[in-house]
Amino acid sequence: MTDILLLQGANMNWLGKREPELYGTTSAAELDKIVRAHAETLDLSLEIFYTNTEGTAIDRIYKAAQDGIAGLVMNPAGFTYGGFALRDCLRAVRLPYVEVHMTNIERRSTRSLTVAEADGVIIGLGIDSYRLGLDAIVAVLRQQSTS
Amino acid sequence: MTDILLLQGANMNWLGKREPELYGTTSAAELDKIVRAHAETLDLSLEIFYTNTEGTAIDRIYKAAQDGIAGLVMNPAGFTYGGFALRDCLRAVRLPYVEVHMTNIERRSTRSLTVAEADGVIIGLGIDSYRLGLDAIVAVLRQQSTS
Amino acid sequence: MTDILLLQGANMNWLGKREPELYGTTSAAELDKIVRAHAETLDLSLEIFYTNTEGTAIDRIYKAAQDGIAGLVMNPAGFTYGGFALRDCLRAVRLPYVEVHMTNIERRSTRSLTVAEADGVIIGLGIDSYRLGLDAIVAVLRQQSTS
Amino acid sequence: MTDILLLQGANMNWLGKREPELYGTTSAAELDKIVRAHAETLDLSLEIFYTNTEGTAIDRIYKAAQDGIAGLVMNPAGFTYGGFALRDCLRAVRLPYVEVHMTNIERRSTRSLTVAEADGVIIGLGIDSYRLGLDAIVAVLRQQSTS
Amino acid sequence: MTDILLLQGANMNWLGKREPELYGTTSAAELDKIVRAHAETLDLSLEIFYTNTEGTAIDRIYKAAQDGIAGLVMNPAGFTYGGFALRDCLRAVRLPYVEVHMTNIERRSTRSLTVAEADGVIIGLGIDSYRLGLDAIVAVLRQQSTS
Amino acid sequence: MTDILLLQGANMNWLGKREPELYGTTSAAELDKIVRAHAETLDLSLEIFYTNTEGTAIDRIYKAAQDGIAGLVMNPAGFTYGGFALRDCLRAVRLPYVEVHMTNIERRSTRSLTVAEADGVIIGLGIDSYRLGLDAIVAVLRQQSTS
Amino acid sequence: MTDILLLQGANMNWLGKREPELYGTTSAAELDKIVRAHAETLDLSLEIFYTNTEGTAIDRIYKAAQDGIAGLVMNPAGFTYGGFALRDCLRAVRLPYVEVHMTNIERRSTRSLTVAEADGVIIGLGIDSYRLGLDAIVAVLRQQSTS
Amino acid sequence: MTDILLLQGANMNWLGKREPELYGTTSAAELDKIVRAHAETLDLSLEIFYTNTEGTAIDRIYKAAQDGIAGLVMNPAGFTYGGFALRDCLRAVRLPYVEVHMTNIERRSTRSLTVAEADGVIIGLGIDSYRLGLDAIVAVLRQQSTS
Amino acid sequence: MTDILLLQGANMNWLGKREPELYGTTSAAELDKIVRAHAETLDLSLEIFYTNTEGTAIDRIYKAAQDGIAGLVMNPAGFTYGGFALRDCLRAVRLPYVEVHMTNIERRSTRSLTVAEADGVIIGLGIDSYRLGLDAIVAVLRQQSTS
Amino acid sequence: MTDILLLQGANMNWLGKREPELYGTTSAAELDKIVRAHAETLDLSLEIFYTNTEGTAIDRIYKAAQDGIAGLVMNPAGFTYGGFALRDCLRAVRLPYVEVHMTNIERRSTRSLTVAEADGVIIGLGIDSYRLGLDAIVAVLRQQSTS
Amino acid sequence: MTDILLLQGANMNWLGKREPELYGTTSAAELDKIVRAHAETLDLSLEIFYTNTEGTAIDRIYKAAQDGIAGLVMNPAGFTYGGFALRDCLRAVRLPYVEVHMTNIERRSTRSLTVAEADGVIIGLGIDSYRLGLDAIVAVLRQQSTS
Amino acid sequence: MTDILLLQGANMNWLGKREPELYGTTSAAELDKIVRAHAETLDLSLEIFYTNTEGTAIDRIYKAAQDGIAGLVMNPAGFTYGGFALRDCLRAVRLPYVEVHMTNIERRSTRSLTVAEADGVIIGLGIDSYRLGLDAIVAVLRQQSTS
Repeated sequence: MTDILLLQGANMNWLGKREPELYGTTSAAELDKIVRAHAETLDLSLEIFYTNTEGTAIDRIYKAAQDGIAGLVMNPAGFTYGGFALRDCLRAVRLPYVEVHMTNIERRSTRSLTVAEADGVIIGLGIDSYRLGLDAIVAVLRQQSTS
Repeated sequence: MTDILLLQGANMNWLGKREPELYGTTSAAELDKIVRAHAETLDLSLEIFYTNTEGTAIDRIYKAAQDGIAGLVMNPAGFTYGGFALRDCLRAVRLPYVEVHMTNIERRSTRSLTVAEADGVIIGLGIDSYRLGLDAIVAVLRQQSTS
Repeated sequence: MTDILLLQGANMNWLGKREPELYGTTSAAELDKIVRAHAETLDLSLEIFYTNTEGTAIDRIYKAAQDGIAGLVMNPAGFTYGGFALRDCLRAVRLPYVEVHMTNIERRSTRSLTVAEADGVIIGLGIDSYRLGLDAIVAVLRQQSTS
Repeated sequence: MTDILLLQGANMNWLGKREPELYGTTSAAELDKIVRAHAETLDLSLEIFYTNTEGTAIDRIYKAAQDGIAGLVMNPAGFTYGGFALRDCLRAVRLPYVEVHMTNIERRSTRSLTVAEADGVIIGLGIDSYRLGLDAIVAVLRQQSTS
Repeated sequence: MTDILLLQGANMNWLGKREPELYGTTSAAELDKIVRAHAETLDLSLEIFYTNTEGTAIDRIYKAAQDGIAGLVMNPAGFTYGGFALRDCLRAVRLPYVEVHMTNIERRSTRSLTVAEADGVIIGLGIDSYRLGLDAIVAVLRQQSTS
Repeated sequence: MTDILLLQGANMNWLGKREPELYGTTSAAELDKIVRAHAETLDLSLEIFYTNTEGTAIDRIYKAAQDGIAGLVMNPAGFTYGGFALRDCLRAVRLPYVEVHMTNIERRSTRSLTVAEADGVIIGLGIDSYRLGLDAIVAVLRQQSTS
Repeated sequence: MTDILLLQGANMNWLGKREPELYGTTSAAELDKIVRAHAETLDLSLEIFYTNTEGTAIDRIYKAAQDGIAGLVMNPAGFTYGGFALRDCLRAVRLPYVEVHMTNIERRSTRSLTVAEADGVIIGLGIDSYRLGLDAIVAVLRQQSTS
Repeated sequence: MTDILLLQGANMNWLGKREPELYGTTSAAELDKIVRAHAETLDLSLEIFYTNTEGTAIDRIYKAAQDGIAGLVMNPAGFTYGGFALRDCLRAVRLPYVEVHMTNIERRSTRSLTVAEADGVIIGLGIDSYRLGLDAIVAVLRQQSTS
Repeated sequence: MTDILLLQGANMNWLGKREPELYGTTSAAELDKIVRAHAETLDLSLEIFYTNTEGTAIDRIYKAAQDGIAGLVMNPAGFTYGGFALRDCLRAVRLPYVEVHMTNIERRSTRSLTVAEADGVIIGLGIDSYRLGLDAIVAVLRQQSTS
Repeated sequence: MTDILLLQGANMNWLGKREPELYGTTSAAELDKIVRAHAETLDLSLEIFYTNTEGTAIDRIYKAAQDGIAGLVMNPAGFTYGGFALRDCLRAVRLPYVEVHMTNIERRSTRSLTVAEADGVIIGLGIDSYRLGLDAIVAVLRQQSTS
Repeated sequence: MTDILLLQGANMNWLGKREPELYGTTSAAELDKIVRAHAETLDLSLEIFYTNTEGTAIDRIYKAAQDGIAGLVMNPAGFTYGGFALRDCLRAVRLPYVEVHMTNIERRSTRSLTVAEADGVIIGLGIDSYRLGLDAIVAVLRQQSTS
Repeated sequence: MTDILLLQGANMNWLGKREPELYGTTSAAELDKIVRAHAETLDLSLEIFYTNTEGTAIDRIYKAAQDGIAGLVMNPAGFTYGGFALRDCLRAVRLPYVEVHMTNIERRSTRSLTVAEADGVIIGLGIDSYRLGLDAIVAVLRQQSTS
């Protein structure tokens, strides 16, 4: 099995209660279950980590890099706009990285600071963004192993 | 009694020693005493929380929302300029919210990221900004209960 | 009793009929009555003045300054965006000044030209903005008399 | 007959003498006569009002709204660039409104502050802009009565 | 009779189905009929031409100029924002030109690239914009013949 | 089977020869074969259309809408930066729409004009962007049928 | 004798009391006396007019133009930043015009809207700016009579 | 002989009639004759192609690349400001490319989107810009064959 | 007598031949004579220095400061837009300084880098700008001796 | 001995593995050893503190200020771009402060938010930046003790 | 023979050693020889002048204008970005002027201050830019003699 | 011994008299003595050169490069903001380069044009900036000899 870290940025713990007209009513716990089920079909061993503190996210990514993880899937969420240090961290660890957003951030004129570091980006498909995000990290790993 | 969270953002712990020509010489402990006394006259049960870490502030607000608090009064202080995740948190919890600033931030060309989420804003009155901030949250709660 | 001028800027005469979803249905006359009642409890002698012409507002403020008024509370309203001359007038008279806005102008990306001259600012509380505005001018006068 | 207010903004009193290479040599009095003649063919009762003071224009529009006028045709002229309070007034009264400009203001890189409030806009046709402006207010009134 | 080309820019073929809350439910075919009826009353011979390709519009205008057409009425529609080549074409042919827009593009913060070349502009009156556009081109032709 | 239009914007015909260090060496013909194979597994009937002319793309989309197609997958490619008319077309037809980009356009500071109209966006995965784009349109169709 | 209008813009009535560290302690009445004395030595008949209302300033300038005045000296003061209508008025009357400022407005990053219409500009010399302003209008009149 | 494509962008077909004070009175046909004569002295086989549609220009360049042409000389003309897709096409084909402009576009504050892809640029010399453009493509080809 | 340095910046040596429609036909030599004559009436000992090199101007000003000169009158001319080092020099020497411009630089949207250092500014009066510039330096010296 | 806090901002823990072409291959532990050795020669007692969380850095600085530390040397690293709260903290404690950067951040168009609070800045010398940073804090302390 | 001044701006003396990957390895002396040889074939008498000081370049151009030179060819080089005074000089002398650049400055996002004054511009052809620059000045002189 | 050029930019000759509250009272001569003494301890042979003319600075640096100097230390001073040609010169000679500033230019929102070319930068330490600048050039030379 391949080890993947799924990192959920600031305010994702409030999923299901947070602006449900934008993000739907699936809770964080329900999302985790859906995503784990899909990971199994892809033979991925998934660790899911939620935090509202950017520095804690950075600490977790460095730990993952040291533990030899294969790839990172992240929804930067609340770190999307101000996460300069997180962006530098991604540049530093150089892990295969897929960024996911549940909503079309372009429609809301939002610019992600971390997206330039991504090998793949999935935007706007709600819960399905995570499912396609896992598919994408598998594609990235396969591309890199064959190049 | 009505439960209110008073959140003090980054650097407010240093009040009284921090740029006293701007913020005065009243210490954080003295301020707390003044504010608690005023809260009592308004029949408010006040919890005061200081933090220099934005993610910790977000954690505290979600906890307050889960505990069924009635309203939030916050001086974002050091989070005023870069608090994107904090802004998203305020949008997510949708608590009645009054923002206070001790100094006239407009005079210093500062723009608050969180102010757009506020139901009321009190600016520039030093220690009195907190006193009027409590009056304002009472007014907001009364307006919402009658609308 | 302390003499205070309450100045209502352009379009405030239309209150109650003007964008009621933003400003409510209380008319200018009703507002005056509410505000006068609150002024009495604070021992303030209140003169209320409405005008749609910036120059007339400036003339009125100079007259107030010459008459030895103690402080100014103003909702610049329609003068908020283009009131350069009004701003210079406030700089010239240097009266204790509290600025009030009924709606959260930050939410509408509006920037007030006069706010930098204010000793206190009250934003977003509808009719209550005026009540807290009077409380604030009292606080400003008390602070200045003790400093 | 339908009551219409035709409001002429700052500097329109000087028509015929003002930059005649741009605005032609027809005087304000001659223009009034031409416009009145056209109004009669449309069964409009037309009041024409000139002012160089924005606040006076606002006062006049509120009076018209209180008098139950059917629509407003205005050349904001000198108020085009700085008429923030006039714009708020138009938002407040919500009268059917047609804005006219004698010259192509786009060609001179001018942006009208009030144009966003207009139900119809006529630009660049000199004296004929007023004639088509009256036709347009008739069209607006007819559309609104049938919708 | 006077020959006039009415040019309909990108997406006008979809009229009636395209954002009907903005553009109404009249179809392109129905609009043509209404406009032709009005043209007859003005003794205009009208050719109507729809295209989604900017270069095709340019080709058509040059052909019209070579055929000795008297004037051009155009709704640039989808070419409004990016039609640099179309703007240069209008500068090149120097035909009497009236630009029409069905909606108030200023309200949507849109800037037309071609409008600076227009002798007259009609904005925001829906289907009536075309009717007044024909009136305006007649006015322009009359002004130019008498100057 | 579900009918899907895959639209390839300007310069995609040159795939395999065009900046291969960015876009790889797979030719347009080879890509088509890969994409068709994947479409079959999803029970999609796929029409693939290449054009270098924005107006032709618009014509094709309107035809697809009239033919009752279920969804659109598009790589706007050369229309990404200047495709204002294409954007208006997407707004007009309101088809389920997934936008794909082979490279991380954010890394190159490119902003897509059409992306705000997309229900889903896939970025940066090369040839795999198309495969995931088809998966995404299936997800969009399923979400819309269940909402 | 030559008739000259000296127009004092918004807030100049407060001279001597207004920011004396910038504008000195000479009052408006004293300034008038000094300026009149200097005018006499230049054989100028001087009318001095103060107003805080831009429209009133415009009315006064049109009246002066109709009365056949020879030139205008103006300190736009509070109209400096927002006086668009005043600028259009200056363009309309085309009187010889000298603009004066008591302080170095460039040092305060201020841009005058009316200065582009001036035949001469005197900046920064306090009370002496008016004296040199009168000298300058004499120079302008002499230059124009000899060209 | 060396095969060169001379591509004339939007509105060049109207040469001689288009803003003759800028572009002179030589017609497109006359220009072609002059340019062909000069090409012969340089032993160049010249194909000249005019189009008003950017996509057609792109199609033509890809065809030229496939036919093994040696170099491209182009006056982007109307595609100068909005030709993003054309720019990407130039990047894709990587043909030796010389860009020519008849007028000094810098004097008119115009920025060419395609110029960054050029190996040489000739600006401002009217008809002679084409003659020097051919000389320049010869120089580019010689430099590349010797490097 | 009072020693004054009159410094003429880049291109002033070409006066009379340089854009005579802007600067007139008086030559540099003739100007010097006119200015010297006026200086004598003010009891000023005038040294006039022309240079096209900013560093040479700076050297000359430091020499003047060391020689104990009373004041500086300068037309920065060609140094107006890029004279950062000259601006720093003026800040360093802190000489009484009057800046003169022959034409209304504001009309040409030019911003002077050195003007913020000036005690007085004279703009737009052609040759008379120098005459008033000398009057102004006398006023500045008198003001400073009495303050 | 003099107590100095050396604070290492976000991502510095990854030194040696992080973009080694920019930051070299010396690890954080090796750097600490080099820096401590140099501190000893300067008679400095050095505490070194690494953190990826801005709020934790702020907490540490306030603790240092309370403990009576003599000066602060900091590489803000990942806090360089978004560290508004950190900047306010530096303003609040007013400790002697030297900022160091291993690479030339100006070359990468990076602007440090905290640099304006520094008494000295060392940029671009890799590991040597720290050595010179310690020399600089000694110089700052000596300057302040003698002024 | 026709007298032409070839002016080489700042840093051109270092040609051949300066960023050879951009400017090649031909030295200034070798370039002069190549250019002189080409000038002879055009019957031009060429003076070549190198300087690193903008004021010296200006002095040289005025001298040339006084000596009755026919035209100027210049590579502004280091004066390209900051040469405001040089630009004014070109406006003053109004000599026929061809500007040359060895590299494609547009590719490096550089904007030339002097280019708007040029009658012709040659960009990007290395050493050949000078050869074509001489051809261009001959074309300019011929055009002006026949117009 | 190692040959180093210390270049002092515009206005440094006035050190000690120039804004002493910013730059202190040490004169240029005294500074030279201090710097030479420190150079000796580092075994550097130091040439110090002052100039107010950017072109002269450039000439001096080329001469130094030709003479085989080891490194350059420069305070660009007055050339900091406009020294484009100086920046190109630094790019051309590619000498080891350390830039020094006596004051914290970031605190004054100044951006140095030349700093991007520096191998090391020392900011804000007054006279000590030069001492550390020499230490830094030694570090740069040592790093380059060992890499």
